[in-house]
Amino acid sequence: MTPNILRETEEFLHEQIPLTRAMGVQVESYDGQTLVLTAPLEPNHNHLGTAFGGSLSAIATLTGYSLLWLLLGDRESHIVIRESSIRYRHPVRSTIRAQCQSPNEDTVSAFKTQFRQVGKARLKLQVFIKNEQRICVEFEGEFVALK
Amino acid sequence: MTPNILRETEEFLHEQIPLTRAMGVQVESYDGQTLVLTAPLEPNHNHLGTAFGGSLSAIATLTGYSLLWLLLGDRESHIVIRESSIRYRHPVRSTIRAQCQSPNEDTVSAFKTQFRQVGKARLKLQVFIKNEQRICVEFEGEFVALK
Repeated sequence: MTPNILRETEEFLHEQIPLTRAMGVQVESYDGQTLVLTAPLEPNHNHLGTAFGGSLSAIATLTGYSLLWLLLGDRESHIVIRESSIRYRHPVRSTIRAQCQSPNEDTVSAFKTQFRQVGKARLKLQVFIKNEQRICVEFEGEFVALK
Repeated sequence: MTPNILRETEEFLHEQIPLTRAMGVQVESYDGQTLVLTAPLEPNHNHLGTAFGGSLSAIATLTGYSLLWLLLGDRESHIVIRESSIRYRHPVRSTIRAQCQSPNEDTVSAFKTQFRQVGKARLKLQVFIKNEQRICVEFEGEFVALK
């Protein structure tokens, strides 16, 4: 992927969802399969000096949302989140780094076909936040794309 | 409850969790049973002009966390969230208003006893966000208090 798509996605998030700017969210990488969003700890810490659960759930939501936006590549579509669950296994003590991998090709292909034919399709995405070589946060969200 | 406890809780959140200030979180009311936190739409909107899912999950997390903090009344304790699930039923189109009700007396009493005896106790809390006379967001979180 060109650096352009990273910068465009980041600008879109900052312009359209102002909290992402307050959180310092950056689009670190996207290889067509895996998207990584980051945010510094400083604006996102809690009363214990580790990452605030609300920031972690927000960046996980954003990462799933953004991956779907990139997969779909349809600027006219709307994406919303229907439901999600999150498990906080360990505290995050430095930069928050959230990673979402595209589901397998068949799943993505079925999702795109349904979206084209019906104008509405759902996709479950998992997001992981790693810190100090371990998975600290596990997130699963169901997203809906609408024409 | 005196207005003091509302102001103190709000100041605690703004000082200890800086994202709450960026979100404009306010402690609206607490009657010893039900806590209501609010946040204006403007800093929390998404690309569709409705409330951003990440802001909704963050304020729901905060409301559960703050209710537990108020119930426990122990400034030396730490409260963390272990896991949560959230369902976005309808978009929130104006001020976000998150409400968390204390569980029944027996549950709270058992929680406090365990916390005193073991120094660690868990509690599940539900948070609802209503807008335009309907429940738009349902949240359930498991919180842990630690000495």
